[in-house]
Amino acid sequence: MAKQNIYDNETFFAGYSELRAREANANNLFEIPERFALLPDLADLRILDLGCGSGEHCMDYLNMGAKEVTGIDISEKMLSVAKEKNSAPGIRYIRMPMEDLDKLEGGFDLVISSLAIHYIEDYRGVVKNVRRLLVPGGEFIFSQEHPINTCHTGGDRWVRDETGYKLSAKVTDYAKEGERESVWFVDNVKIYHRSMSTVINVLIEEGFKIEKIVEPKPSEELLEKYPDYYDLYHKPDFLIVKAKAES
Amino acid sequence: MAKQNIYDNETFFAGYSELRAREANANNLFEIPERFALLPDLADLRILDLGCGSGEHCMDYLNMGAKEVTGIDISEKMLSVAKEKNSAPGIRYIRMPMEDLDKLEGGFDLVISSLAIHYIEDYRGVVKNVRRLLVPGGEFIFSQEHPINTCHTGGDRWVRDETGYKLSAKVTDYAKEGERESVWFVDNVKIYHRSMSTVINVLIEEGFKIEKIVEPKPSEELLEKYPDYYDLYHKPDFLIVKAKAES
Repeated sequence: MAKQNIYDNETFFAGYSELRAREANANNLFEIPERFALLPDLADLRILDLGCGSGEHCMDYLNMGAKEVTGIDISEKMLSVAKEKNSAPGIRYIRMPMEDLDKLEGGFDLVISSLAIHYIEDYRGVVKNVRRLLVPGGEFIFSQEHPINTCHTGGDRWVRDETGYKLSAKVTDYAKEGERESVWFVDNVKIYHRSMSTVINVLIEEGFKIEKIVEPKPSEELLEKYPDYYDLYHKPDFLIVKAKAES
Repeated sequence: MAKQNIYDNETFFAGYSELRAREANANNLFEIPERFALLPDLADLRILDLGCGSGEHCMDYLNMGAKEVTGIDISEKMLSVAKEKNSAPGIRYIRMPMEDLDKLEGGFDLVISSLAIHYIEDYRGVVKNVRRLLVPGGEFIFSQEHPINTCHTGGDRWVRDETGYKLSAKVTDYAKEGERESVWFVDNVKIYHRSMSTVINVLIEEGFKIEKIVEPKPSEELLEKYPDYYDLYHKPDFLIVKAKAES
């Protein structure tokens, strides 16, 4: 299976860095706070961050009391930013695609992954490995693009009025799982669509107990400030799952 | 909270009976087989059927080995059909809206509900009662209209080509939970939209462990026979959940 490393594409990297540097993007407003709200007390935990990118959350986890943080990422560019900006004793970065997790040794109390799982074709393989890497009772908290989103097969995602205002999201081929090509700064970013039932059932089948799922949406206050995010009321962008490794 | 009894509306009842009498409707092709596939061995189980309608499944459960089946329904019309066509020692029918479940005594091994939960405003109240009515380790298996479906706020649900062919489902106000008015044989059938995360999280919060979720879709063979059901690839009609009462 191909391991996709779009983050080392120059055009993608530039576009992505600019997006993440903006204050009010959907990650900062919705995905990050909701994912952090699911975290347990991190004191003394050994944490693995799958797709750690530039490592800012690895540093956050350490500051929140974690004993050790391991960040893995496929992208050399991302990891060089991580090493430069977010190094500390207690954090180690390893260049490794998520598909190679079987090379990693276990004993983690918490595995976290932010918006990376939908780039992976072999979801069950990753889930199996995460289960192996966790101690019994350990937790797996991950976010991904929402299945209502990943199913998209091309063209405008929205039904709009004549002014371009978004009236409804278009949902197409939700039940057809597999590869989708997406345009996000560069052409041909590959994501893999899985239905909600597959995302949940594979976790259960591989020894996890579902603890909570979150479909972030804007608060009233946020909507007043950023009315354009009303589109998240029509269709959630993100899905966040918290699951416990059963003993 | 209003208890809705559309099944005792004459027009609704006539339309619904005709629909269910046809062989190849979505219930018979998708909802029923997938729900039955989730059933455990019924031998000696005490079963409660919430919204049992005309009782045909109560009779099936008894024939599959159940010890006792209790069917409750809000509709007198439905229950009179049930008593006429699907009576047996071991089956009892009680006229009771699901909102009054706290009047029922517990000790059930399995609670089943087919396509009735989305008519209920107080979902948490029903889930709490089902947990109370089940023995520890007992199971709750229910189907409902899929959240991608229940969110619908009116108008055509589909983006179509000029011939009327369905290209994409329209998804609107998914994150806005609450009452929806639906037209299904009669106007103003009220359903209550809840997001997938609410459906799942309320079960977990009230003491259930999620065992499996199913979003039925047509098989290749079914699609060949009934190509119109391709629309279920765009958007699932049903959600089926299997959950276990934790001890």
